Amino acid sequence: MAKSNERAITPQSEDFSAWYNELVLRAELADRGPVRGTMVMRPYGYRIWELLQGELDARIKATGHENAYFPLFIPESHLTREAEHVEGFAPELAVVTHAGGHELEEPIVVRPTSETIIGEMFAKWISSYRDLPLLINQWANVVRWELRPRLFLRTTEFLWQEGHTAHADEADAQRETMVATGFYEEVSREIAALPVVIGDKTASERFAGAKRTVSLETLVRDGRAIQSATSHYLGTNFAKAFEINYTSAEGVETLCHTTSWGMSTRMVGAVIMTHGDDKGLILPPRLAPHQVVIVPIGRDSELEAVLIRANGLAEALKELGVRVRIDDRTTLSPGFKFNEWELRGVPLRIELGPRDLAAGVATIANRLSGEKEQLSIEDVAAEIPGRLDAFQSALYARALSFREEHTMSVDSREAFDAAVAVGFASALHCGERSCEEEIKESTGATTRCIPFEAPRETGSCVACGKPEHYGQRILFARAY
Amino acid sequence: MAKSNERAITPQSEDFSAWYNELVLRAELADRGPVRGTMVMRPYGYRIWELLQGELDARIKATGHENAYFPLFIPESHLTREAEHVEGFAPELAVVTHAGGHELEEPIVVRPTSETIIGEMFAKWISSYRDLPLLINQWANVVRWELRPRLFLRTTEFLWQEGHTAHADEADAQRETMVATGFYEEVSREIAALPVVIGDKTASERFAGAKRTVSLETLVRDGRAIQSATSHYLGTNFAKAFEINYTSAEGVETLCHTTSWGMSTRMVGAVIMTHGDDKGLILPPRLAPHQVVIVPIGRDSELEAVLIRANGLAEALKELGVRVRIDDRTTLSPGFKFNEWELRGVPLRIELGPRDLAAGVATIANRLSGEKEQLSIEDVAAEIPGRLDAFQSALYARALSFREEHTMSVDSREAFDAAVAVGFASALHCGERSCEEEIKESTGATTRCIPFEAPRETGSCVACGKPEHYGQRILFARAY
Repeated sequence: MAKSNERAITPQSEDFSAWYNELVLRAELADRGPVRGTMVMRPYGYRIWELLQGELDARIKATGHENAYFPLFIPESHLTREAEHVEGFAPELAVVTHAGGHELEEPIVVRPTSETIIGEMFAKWISSYRDLPLLINQWANVVRWELRPRLFLRTTEFLWQEGHTAHADEADAQRETMVATGFYEEVSREIAALPVVIGDKTASERFAGAKRTVSLETLVRDGRAIQSATSHYLGTNFAKAFEINYTSAEGVETLCHTTSWGMSTRMVGAVIMTHGDDKGLILPPRLAPHQVVIVPIGRDSELEAVLIRANGLAEALKELGVRVRIDDRTTLSPGFKFNEWELRGVPLRIELGPRDLAAGVATIANRLSGEKEQLSIEDVAAEIPGRLDAFQSALYARALSFREEHTMSVDSREAFDAAVAVGFASALHCGERSCEEEIKESTGATTRCIPFEAPRETGSCVACGKPEHYGQRILFARAY
Repeated sequence: MAKSNERAITPQSEDFSAWYNELVLRAELADRGPVRGTMVMRPYGYRIWELLQGELDARIKATGHENAYFPLFIPESHLTREAEHVEGFAPELAVVTHAGGHELEEPIVVRPTSETIIGEMFAKWISSYRDLPLLINQWANVVRWELRPRLFLRTTEFLWQEGHTAHADEADAQRETMVATGFYEEVSREIAALPVVIGDKTASERFAGAKRTVSLETLVRDGRAIQSATSHYLGTNFAKAFEINYTSAEGVETLCHTTSWGMSTRMVGAVIMTHGDDKGLILPPRLAPHQVVIVPIGRDSELEAVLIRANGLAEALKELGVRVRIDDRTTLSPGFKFNEWELRGVPLRIELGPRDLAAGVATIANRLSGEKEQLSIEDVAAEIPGRLDAFQSALYARALSFREEHTMSVDSREAFDAAVAVGFASALHCGERSCEEEIKESTGATTRCIPFEAPRETGSCVACGKPEHYGQRILFARAY
């Protein structure tokens, strides 16, 4: 555990990818599993996920959804019932062919997502309009074979929640798509401090089998976008494939309209890449396993007195609901500990030594501003919750400024190419798939979303000059 | 949803297995998945698991363990490193041979348990005595191919937590085995109201690769035993196989001693089978998704007045921390609702009608005693928490009496056979595997545990007459 600051990590500006990989390993967030593309979430990384889970689960439940659990294994034939869906997922499937010592008659697919198996159960459970809406969520692992894995962002197996709902008509299902978007927005902005841009996906980037995909996009510090959550209106596509019908109040057999929506452990990757700096991670207080670390300084009997005071302070902070840890490891120097907790992104560090005790003060170091301040030791505990709130806001503001500085409204292809090299390009587009593909091939950028909040605008496509299609600018970026 | 009491379920005495299967489906606890042996946990069943999880997770964290997450996929070669372990699990494995559209070079096993993959990571993370003890837990799904699946009790995929820890020496690892046993005992007794018997497994029933397995056994209403959780001391078996070493304070390279311990969704099956009766489920209040259901009675304007009162009562109960639901479905009769909530095991039902309102009373029906009592409507809310505690205790006491009545201390083979036909046989045994096997073949009974709490006793084996081996009586039963 004590190897985390043998040397500094690669600076972001030198090699962002190296910075990220080193940080994830050195901060003990995750490790690589023995099967290619798999990930071990270590306690520190998993705790961030647990905190995110708790926040999201509370919002999912508060809006009338119930948790359930569906099987990992799906008969291969199930997946083929919705044509677009199977086409989208077939290349990424892991297939079980042998079990219990025998070859299986029908191969089994390890779920890449659960629309098909949940669709089958919904068809069984729903018979009348009185059974609608059916609002289900599950927390689960899913598997998608990844050719270019990256810890948290693209792993062969990842953890997520997937909401699945069935409704009497399109209006209710579309409303649900926005309810889910609503709690993703809240968790992204208020908890993870990510200034997400929300909008519809263009046809080429929609979920396989969806009529509409709403996504939340964040811009990270190398100028690439990360899709942090998506919410899909599936129309009657899956209802048709799995015969999800209900008898209406008028006695008419009717197809349901369904939705699905998900947020995964890649969100942790978005947090790391959005907030981190050359010293390491910077965690939003509301997701930090330790919001405050107290580092006691001194030796022998002096240290004993400091530890007593540190313990009292920690107890006072716990009573205020602050997640605090005392780093009382005896074999490491204070300087080593300072570096380690900076690397691991703890928002506030309290330094407490014999001289502080004598002066009746404690020193608070802020991971974001890098500043230190001295506070009367009597006041420290009461001051911390406000300092954490301010930290959370400042982190959000910093990410928002970064995004604003790296979002360019562009009207020429030259300006477009320059913009997507460093962030979002906001541009008019013809809406044609071939044009999107040409852009992707030459710049690596894809359409990220058609933002909800954008003025109406017309003109010609930034790439091909044809009339624009969306009646507004849309966002392009290179993405993870 | 409205199909749950078209007809009564099969009585326990007529066909216990049919009673169980019908109840699980009709109470909407679970459903069968499309792949043989898999299970869908429906919201009502999953909520019981969530409540159990919450209780256990709090105890795991309070004792210094941290949650983490390890991959679902294990290289086949990993599993073979500990010889006994692979021998035990090989017949139950599900194997992925194809992924991403290609045949894999090395087949991948879907985890049946995670000792091997966690062992590999522990070896990487532990270097010094300062890294010990390493106390990790994970909440996960595991897969074991089941030939005779039964919902909750034996499913191809199940959910569980698995604790994995590494220690400097045997004493510390043995202590950990008992720490885990301690929180399983608390959760079993205090939360699930299961009067578990705790003891060591005999060699034949130990976990594959363990030096010692402690198990918690409960007796269900058809006289069979269910193992509700286990805690294993693994000695240095896995440490040797995966090279989990540390450098001691004296600079000596030393093998770790490891443990593992788990509780799964089969616990929900144990709760159903221990507490249910011919009317359906009876849930311990501390695991009940709805501890109280309020059924408003009346029509039109009378019903409106009742609903206002019912809502006020529900709010008062929520403030007291009671999980309460108002069943205000308009298309179902009160009688139908009474039956449905009895089937689904809700501890207390409050009936509230216009006449009750006029008399200033509410009627409380107790699912366990079957009794009804009238309470002043002003007092109801304040009375409920105490009633729920009493219900929880009474349910535990009932299960304990049942177990005591169905545990026979036997000294002859004839008495033994009669005892295991209806419950636990407490008997002296020679400790020989061949003798255990003969008993199993002729009666279906296996050794359940060597109870910790038992007087010392010597004599001869109940089956073969040889001298007994354990210095005390051990428990036998037919088991799920």
